[in-house]
Amino acid sequence: MLRSIGRQWRCSAAFQCATFQTAPSGGGRANSSGVPAQQRQQQQQQAQEQQQQHEQLLQIDEEVARLLALKAKLGGDAAPANQKFTLKTPKGTRDYAPQQMTLRQGVLDKIVQVFKRHGGEAIDTPVFELKEVLTGKYGEDSKLIYDLKDQGGEILSMRYDLTVPLARYLAMNKISSIKRYHIAKVYRRDNPAMTKGRYREFYQCDFDIAGTYDPMLADAECVKIVSEILDTLDIGEYVIKLNHRQLLDGMFQACGVPADSFRTICSAVDKLDKSPWADVRKEMVEEKGLDEAAADRIGEYVRLSGGAELVEQLLVDEKLKAVPNAVKGLEGMQLLLKYCSIFGLEKRVSFDLSLARGLDYYTGVIYEGVLKGESAAVASPAKSSQQNGEQTNEPATVGSVAGGGRYDNLVGMFDPRGKAVPCVGVSIGVERIFSVLEARAAASGLKLRTSDVEVYVASAHKGLHEQRLKVLNQLWDAGVKAEHSYKLNPKLLVQLQHCEEHQIPLVVVLGDAELAQGVVKLREVTTRQETNVKLEDLAAEIRRRQQAA
Amino acid sequence: MLRSIGRQWRCSAAFQCATFQTAPSGGGRANSSGVPAQQRQQQQQQAQEQQQQHEQLLQIDEEVARLLALKAKLGGDAAPANQKFTLKTPKGTRDYAPQQMTLRQGVLDKIVQVFKRHGGEAIDTPVFELKEVLTGKYGEDSKLIYDLKDQGGEILSMRYDLTVPLARYLAMNKISSIKRYHIAKVYRRDNPAMTKGRYREFYQCDFDIAGTYDPMLADAECVKIVSEILDTLDIGEYVIKLNHRQLLDGMFQACGVPADSFRTICSAVDKLDKSPWADVRKEMVEEKGLDEAAADRIGEYVRLSGGAELVEQLLVDEKLKAVPNAVKGLEGMQLLLKYCSIFGLEKRVSFDLSLARGLDYYTGVIYEGVLKGESAAVASPAKSSQQNGEQTNEPATVGSVAGGGRYDNLVGMFDPRGKAVPCVGVSIGVERIFSVLEARAAASGLKLRTSDVEVYVASAHKGLHEQRLKVLNQLWDAGVKAEHSYKLNPKLLVQLQHCEEHQIPLVVVLGDAELAQGVVKLREVTTRQETNVKLEDLAAEIRRRQQAA
Repeated sequence: MLRSIGRQWRCSAAFQCATFQTAPSGGGRANSSGVPAQQRQQQQQQAQEQQQQHEQLLQIDEEVARLLALKAKLGGDAAPANQKFTLKTPKGTRDYAPQQMTLRQGVLDKIVQVFKRHGGEAIDTPVFELKEVLTGKYGEDSKLIYDLKDQGGEILSMRYDLTVPLARYLAMNKISSIKRYHIAKVYRRDNPAMTKGRYREFYQCDFDIAGTYDPMLADAECVKIVSEILDTLDIGEYVIKLNHRQLLDGMFQACGVPADSFRTICSAVDKLDKSPWADVRKEMVEEKGLDEAAADRIGEYVRLSGGAELVEQLLVDEKLKAVPNAVKGLEGMQLLLKYCSIFGLEKRVSFDLSLARGLDYYTGVIYEGVLKGESAAVASPAKSSQQNGEQTNEPATVGSVAGGGRYDNLVGMFDPRGKAVPCVGVSIGVERIFSVLEARAAASGLKLRTSDVEVYVASAHKGLHEQRLKVLNQLWDAGVKAEHSYKLNPKLLVQLQHCEEHQIPLVVVLGDAELAQGVVKLREVTTRQETNVKLEDLAAEIRRRQQAA
Repeated sequence: MLRSIGRQWRCSAAFQCATFQTAPSGGGRANSSGVPAQQRQQQQQQAQEQQQQHEQLLQIDEEVARLLALKAKLGGDAAPANQKFTLKTPKGTRDYAPQQMTLRQGVLDKIVQVFKRHGGEAIDTPVFELKEVLTGKYGEDSKLIYDLKDQGGEILSMRYDLTVPLARYLAMNKISSIKRYHIAKVYRRDNPAMTKGRYREFYQCDFDIAGTYDPMLADAECVKIVSEILDTLDIGEYVIKLNHRQLLDGMFQACGVPADSFRTICSAVDKLDKSPWADVRKEMVEEKGLDEAAADRIGEYVRLSGGAELVEQLLVDEKLKAVPNAVKGLEGMQLLLKYCSIFGLEKRVSFDLSLARGLDYYTGVIYEGVLKGESAAVASPAKSSQQNGEQTNEPATVGSVAGGGRYDNLVGMFDPRGKAVPCVGVSIGVERIFSVLEARAAASGLKLRTSDVEVYVASAHKGLHEQRLKVLNQLWDAGVKAEHSYKLNPKLLVQLQHCEEHQIPLVVVLGDAELAQGVVKLREVTTRQETNVKLEDLAAEIRRRQQAA
């Protein structure tokens, strides 16, 4: 019988009405020819039946053709034989292999340890948000947001950072104070530079302090957190640059930038870490219509960096001291530097007037942790780059590995009554840190262990696979990390090689002779020392050896 | 001066040509009236100047109006005052608050512990894939895939599970054996049922064994892993249902289902965990055009479940033993049940012919871990459901908490030469497990600690904030988890209340009298016992107390 072919198709009503019966549908009356009435009736009936059958066959043929066509059309959903497209991850993204995951997990664990040392609580939010949540938060970077396709329903975008989702979370749940950390992936349709650890999908590790508090206490703790993290990760020399948005605004005002150009000129200053002053000045003047003299005045300030003495110097600067915003920003910096000094960070921080940060939402102090000199250089992981079709010609250095600042108005933007929750936070650029540490691991030639297996259960000869399963079950139930070959009769040499390759410290070797006595051989892989151990003592003996190691 | 307003606007050429100069542009010749030539010239010049100035002012007004209009138009990108849209997470998604994160992290840690006990290595893949990677892998469920908007470049979709990305990873990197786990979020545009723990964004915890091995050894270990996880999470009674795709196909063949309908009929059988047989039969016959007699024959089989004795019984079933696929499937089940019995799982597993699993890619054994009876009932977390506008009327039960199976052809679909890598794996449905445990935690009224702070540094009186920072810095540098108030002069009572609320065990109380002697008070929050401790011994004393606790 015909049945539905393909997935979404249902029998058409017309087809369901076709009955395929062979019973006559005409009347039985005799006609006026010489043929006896009964015979004529039979002939007529036969002809009718033949015609009916023919029609039915045609109908079936038509329907079969229609269904086959439909099947071919639906074939797009069926499994294709072998894919013809290039096997790759999306542009700017990468897989993490076990080696990389081991390294990454080690880094994240250390970061979480620091976050927890400062009382951080974890939260998580969805990977996408209503598009409206992200609108108007990122200034010129908004064009880098990934949007989801409109499939009917809500219009969604991938999160661009973890800060805006935090602000949405706080406003939505009417939370007025929290110290939270959030480790998750964010998405930016940026030009990827994978050798520098710049991806389109990348992890952020954020720590933020929300609440109405006294000035700079929470801000200074964020600087301390960045410093503790960079110290514990031991990735080399670094400096934490500090600046203040109020000071930047005051400086722009003092230099003659109109108020409604502060953010766009700030965006230009933000490029100073990648571009020379001449290019940034050109952008200000030619693209953003800034007065040349104003640009030059900005140029004088942004070359300044230093410590508390620079703040003193700028507090008596004729142009700046006339602008209230500049004075407030400088006083804030003064207090921040004092607290940083109490935290023993005098040598780690640098008040830097060229630091601007791209995002619109900052309102106070801004930070950036930057690797210095050789720490910033990364050996090109050329293979992974070529796989993804990116350029690898540029010198591979990572600069900024942490950034953040104060954003006092972002939560209020989500609150129906505009109720503000002042916030300050930092984000650790772990992908760049991974890049540095991966390059260092590759250079050292050391192979990280990617599994924690403590013992391998091996067969000395054929026919022992059920015995292996029994021993494994005993070990697993005792909490021992154990594995074996999934072959019925693996060669002993192959099993021992597996242990050496994977740095598994112990092997249990099963053999009929030993099993008959209720014992197994326990072998240390590096020394090749073997001891007979009673089966019932095996888990305890392995535990003992592991603790001694 | 006027400069660009808004972000993307540049001065129009016309406007840049307006010079605003006040110098005369007319000639200096005398005219024929009686006024002296010089005076006339001056008057004329003044009039010209006034006219010019007037025109310039008009021009400025016009340009300002134009720019303001442009600014208003560009305002879409500027920060809006207060959002007018409803603050919510996207449909079918949720935030995790610190309480939920603590519970979730506890669950994931236990699961990872089991994965590692079996030698699992971690990998990670991007949250989205080229759309082509997902095409043709999920059968009828393909319509639930989230697509990204085409923003120029590659066409991307959100991952639907972790299995297809694993297969893509293995084929792309030519890996022929791995034992990997992957814990990450996946995305399905399904009808959410949040009270049952069914979300559109949800965590999967997958463990898969890839490689060419002997039958059922890896498959049985996956069942063992599910059982260890459900045991360690202690979420109540459960059963792990087992079936085999080859047996299902053989059974369909024996019942008279045409080969090209196996998958679609299998999808219908898959609904038996949610719908009664009558509904499933109706779907088979009316929607999928299956012969009624065939449906009834299927109905006889799918009501069967049991253990090894059921396999024996079916191996002599007249209809099944005539179909090679059915016999192969039954022999596989026989071996699997034997290994499960060695693993002590006889009471935990049930060979169940109604188990079908929705996904197309399974080729061998299939599993599903299901909570039984009361374990499956969840108190409605009505609040979070209402927030997201979902119905909460349905009885809140979670059923399946783990699932998986063997998929031997999926990796080959990605390999250019079709090279197969046989795989078997399980996926733990942690969201449903979270739902059960959250409901249990809510019912118990116990509040989980959401931070690990060991000690709070408090001021007994005003003016001690710098002393607090010094003590905190000392504690942090010694690795002690410590926090304080971010107020300059918090009240002692408020500080002590904070410790009680957040279950912080110890408080350091600073006071001028003690500091003058180089000591601080160390107070136990629950007993309110206080001891003076020398500042230099503080970290060590806290460490000692924590270890004793």
